[in-house]
Amino acid sequence: MKQMRDKCAIAGIGQTEYLVNSGRDSFSLALEAITNAVEDAGINVKDIDGILKYSVDSSSSVEMIAANLGLPNVTYWGETFFGGGSGCSAVTQAVMAVASGMANCVVVYRSFTPYDFMQGAVHNSTTLWARASGSGDFLRPFGWTAMMDVFSMMTQRHMHEYGTTNAQLGAIAVAARKHAAMNPNAIRRDPLTLEDYYDSPFTTEPLRELDSAISPCDGAAAVIVTSAERARDLKQTPAYIRACAQVLGIPKTTLWWEQLPFKFDFPETQSAYVAPRLFEMADMTPQDIDVAQIYDCYTYTLLTQLEDYGFCKKGEGGAFVENGRIELGGELPVNTHGGHLSEAYIHGFNHIVEGVRQVRGTSTAQVQDAETVLVTGGVPAPTAALILRK
Amino acid sequence: MKQMRDKCAIAGIGQTEYLVNSGRDSFSLALEAITNAVEDAGINVKDIDGILKYSVDSSSSVEMIAANLGLPNVTYWGETFFGGGSGCSAVTQAVMAVASGMANCVVVYRSFTPYDFMQGAVHNSTTLWARASGSGDFLRPFGWTAMMDVFSMMTQRHMHEYGTTNAQLGAIAVAARKHAAMNPNAIRRDPLTLEDYYDSPFTTEPLRELDSAISPCDGAAAVIVTSAERARDLKQTPAYIRACAQVLGIPKTTLWWEQLPFKFDFPETQSAYVAPRLFEMADMTPQDIDVAQIYDCYTYTLLTQLEDYGFCKKGEGGAFVENGRIELGGELPVNTHGGHLSEAYIHGFNHIVEGVRQVRGTSTAQVQDAETVLVTGGVPAPTAALILRK
Repeated sequence: MKQMRDKCAIAGIGQTEYLVNSGRDSFSLALEAITNAVEDAGINVKDIDGILKYSVDSSSSVEMIAANLGLPNVTYWGETFFGGGSGCSAVTQAVMAVASGMANCVVVYRSFTPYDFMQGAVHNSTTLWARASGSGDFLRPFGWTAMMDVFSMMTQRHMHEYGTTNAQLGAIAVAARKHAAMNPNAIRRDPLTLEDYYDSPFTTEPLRELDSAISPCDGAAAVIVTSAERARDLKQTPAYIRACAQVLGIPKTTLWWEQLPFKFDFPETQSAYVAPRLFEMADMTPQDIDVAQIYDCYTYTLLTQLEDYGFCKKGEGGAFVENGRIELGGELPVNTHGGHLSEAYIHGFNHIVEGVRQVRGTSTAQVQDAETVLVTGGVPAPTAALILRK
Repeated sequence: MKQMRDKCAIAGIGQTEYLVNSGRDSFSLALEAITNAVEDAGINVKDIDGILKYSVDSSSSVEMIAANLGLPNVTYWGETFFGGGSGCSAVTQAVMAVASGMANCVVVYRSFTPYDFMQGAVHNSTTLWARASGSGDFLRPFGWTAMMDVFSMMTQRHMHEYGTTNAQLGAIAVAARKHAAMNPNAIRRDPLTLEDYYDSPFTTEPLRELDSAISPCDGAAAVIVTSAERARDLKQTPAYIRACAQVLGIPKTTLWWEQLPFKFDFPETQSAYVAPRLFEMADMTPQDIDVAQIYDCYTYTLLTQLEDYGFCKKGEGGAFVENGRIELGGELPVNTHGGHLSEAYIHGFNHIVEGVRQVRGTSTAQVQDAETVLVTGGVPAPTAALILRK
């Protein structure tokens, strides 16, 4: 792995408008985001010879993407599972493709519409989990049928074990909204106070509507990955990929993640497995990170990843997010675009794009002198993460 | 790419029984094939830290595969599109993973049941093609709705342009059956003469039932890819991966493959794009190939690939397959397991397993002193190919 450190860079970023009920299909959104990334990088679209995408996706096949972009010669394409972990995972595979000479210029994208979300729901439902653990039959009769039910139970358990509070979850939602307010592309930009947060109805207690990603919404984002050498000759400041890793680690028991909250020791998410591998590849520690874009399908997943990536100890995520520590100007600004909670839910990919902006110094909530950015994928499923640097 | 030459090897192969209407699900078939490959390689199943699969697949997610095998730490997983091109494509990506240090021991598999076939049909239907070219609306009213319709038109065109005959297509079916007769795992083992072939009803003229893969059928196959160094210390003779390539090249026009037969110049399949890249990476020519496992969803796809990979000139595929040239004992034995036509339709993956057997010297139709084996993926879609060697 270490041989890939700093060998590649993100040379272009692109996105569409992020909207609720845009009426657009994911294919045209994908093409628009890719075209924008190509323009941003200052390359010719025909230079693209690699394509990477999420496997749970309705934006059409790589073949159709290639045909519609008019790519003459694609020598690498791949897809990657699982949901929110797929973004950083796909970028990781783009690095492998460039580093191994399979392709020179890889586009990685995510186009996301309610239809994809439905597809994801089918693939990731407890029905599927039940095939591994046989537990679905015991959970569904008691109302545990949706993704949010899993996360609410994990959140509840965190509160029980460590005294995490509603106010701490709320602080995450408030921080995201502050950043989104500066970002003209964010869907939710209205001011948000902790009181507003408390007024938000529970969807599955203790999680409220405002603890959740904006879903469903429509949009697409894309990046161009190429060699560090080539990136230096292109239009933009390269965001070097210092480290990249994907991990699917099985927790101490063979129980699967819908059962994690029932375990005697507190649930680890897959990010706890990715973190050591990532920092080892980077030859860095959490203290080297200037700004983090952390996957936030729910406020809780952001909180737990702060622990898993070593910004604080296990159980201290709640205290960590207090007093503006994760806001612009704080010790570790997190999700400076507004994240899934307030910018848009592009399944982790808008976090990657924002990570690049921070490295370039062009974020709407720019962290002064930011040099090193952590970007993470969804948890507790198999996931991946990146460290980008100037 | 060249830096990956001979860096990896297939160290283990596994398969299930191949059956029609087995009543088994693709998940259990996948686990059985993987377990057999692990045993064949003589490794501990927990050594597996990479998983690669087809993206059009119902055998469950990598997460479920990992959980059910009890894998403690998977550091790479990926998926690859398109249908029959996915097998060699996934092995190519396993090579990238091992060569770049992302994983040390990668399992690649295909589990195929009628359900997957249906899924594939949905994904690959003319409905989807129509999104790229807008041509579906003009084709379907005239009855062009199924995969076979595309291939029959291409076959017809080949006959028209080059004088290819029914007897030549029949020779391919007969050769496959001769090899299958020696293979106890083959589904179709009854003797087959050219007369029997002529008695086979047309499904879409000029293609007959016996021009087609056995479909649907049930089965799974798997291989273990690891470093050449490690493979040497394991139980079996390593099948070194001399070269691997995947290519999605757009033909001279922007027309897509359902339109290929209408082009003025004769259709190229994607294998015409893969071949030069593959042989360049191998530093070999077609003359170096001792035996070939060529994707044969239809007799025609085998015929056209003989041309595309340079075993004969364009238009001479028909003459090439005559007089036992592709049978055991001939100049270039092809599909020594019986192929999709007579062993089973495992979507290209049984061809990879047979390629390894030829390198090991353990095929039921063993080619004497075979050292170098070509394995190809499906065409005319985006595809991939491998060269394996002793």
